[in-house]
Amino acid sequence: MSIGKTVWAIAEGYIPGRSADESHEMVSHETACILNTNEVPANIRITLYFADRDPVGPYEVTVGARRTLHLRFNDLAQPEPVPRDTDYASVFVSDVPIVVQHTRLDSRDPNIALLSTIAYAAG
Amino acid sequence: MSIGKTVWAIAEGYIPGRSADESHEMVSHETACILNTNEVPANIRITLYFADRDPVGPYEVTVGARRTLHLRFNDLAQPEPVPRDTDYASVFVSDVPIVVQHTRLDSRDPNIALLSTIAYAAG
Amino acid sequence: MSIGKTVWAIAEGYIPGRSADESHEMVSHETACILNTNEVPANIRITLYFADRDPVGPYEVTVGARRTLHLRFNDLAQPEPVPRDTDYASVFVSDVPIVVQHTRLDSRDPNIALLSTIAYAAG
Amino acid sequence: MSIGKTVWAIAEGYIPGRSADESHEMVSHETACILNTNEVPANIRITLYFADRDPVGPYEVTVGARRTLHLRFNDLAQPEPVPRDTDYASVFVSDVPIVVQHTRLDSRDPNIALLSTIAYAAG
Repeated sequence: MSIGKTVWAIAEGYIPGRSADESHEMVSHETACILNTNEVPANIRITLYFADRDPVGPYEVTVGARRTLHLRFNDLAQPEPVPRDTDYASVFVSDVPIVVQHTRLDSRDPNIALLSTIAYAAG
Repeated sequence: MSIGKTVWAIAEGYIPGRSADESHEMVSHETACILNTNEVPANIRITLYFADRDPVGPYEVTVGARRTLHLRFNDLAQPEPVPRDTDYASVFVSDVPIVVQHTRLDSRDPNIALLSTIAYAAG
Repeated sequence: MSIGKTVWAIAEGYIPGRSADESHEMVSHETACILNTNEVPANIRITLYFADRDPVGPYEVTVGARRTLHLRFNDLAQPEPVPRDTDYASVFVSDVPIVVQHTRLDSRDPNIALLSTIAYAAG
Repeated sequence: MSIGKTVWAIAEGYIPGRSADESHEMVSHETACILNTNEVPANIRITLYFADRDPVGPYEVTVGARRTLHLRFNDLAQPEPVPRDTDYASVFVSDVPIVVQHTRLDSRDPNIALLSTIAYAAG
């Protein structure tokens, strides 16, 4: 089964620079949850857009066949880390159809807040 | 009236293993809210996808004619329970059109957090 | 300008029966935010679906020409109030195109939680 | 690459009038996150709809080529500021395709709440 689209966009992006709890589980983070239902790996190129400078990328990630990857933007390193406390947006281009959902856990205060939305399926 | 699609995907999935309040109402949980507006029951097969192992399923659920089921992933048992503190994703295949919305209540601290999004309507 | 669709569905529905703050602003509530961009009023019929009994409705609401109505399910009265602490879902049928977004404010504890999602545009 | 649609609607809109923290980062605010992946600027006209009076607008904003703008409704000034504690909705019309996502940070109590959803892509 092959579900989804090959181009996705998330217009919202913001990793809070502070966290009341720095554990991996509870640190403030943004996630792109990617589902690859195909029988082959999904090779994905991510470009980040900013308010006041040129886009950065591509970041390259692979999601195995019939696997999900909950990718933390916090963990992106090449070509450069994602700056904290900075507005950004992201575009995903995959070689096979995928599904992308966006989630943020904000732990700037000890009582966490969550948001999530399906990303925009562009094509 | 028949509303919706027969294939839905939720790329985000994560049941926190801790809850400040273990009551049924307030325990940390993830829900797939399913609406069946048809005059016949909806027979649905759910497959769970993981980061590092093969998919599990199908989980079989039925939603009665003109009924809604707010299915807690916490309650899925056959073929196996959904592991806590583990990233997963899910795909729903129904024999009639349905609508699926994804919600999480996170009560790891006493002040709950909520997220919700329409699922991805695949076809 | 006429934006939207005439049939919408919200698979998630749940009004918490408790609120730490009973003021109109902060009481636990669910809202269907309806936008009518047309030059004529939108006449909308809402049907509620439940887990274990027949649907209830129609609830009839009108949204004026070029107006928005943030309708609280808490306020629906005819043919009957919406029960608290009960799973439900809803379908909106309008005579002109509208846009529907679903939001919940949960104030079971004093630190509120929010969720929101675009509803499912059925046709 | 050109991603998105030229007409978007957000049926939910509400800026809480109170904030436990008045800093720019943490004050209660509503944001329309706009992504312009085009090689040319996006010229956007925003109209606000209300419950009981005529629409207000257009508010004019420009998002540079290959840039994102996380526009705070709090900051809109011309033709008039957005009233607090007031239900509204918004429509975006752009001269090139864009992607719009809606987010609110509510800091009426010190423990913030968040919501987010993709906006409705009208055409």
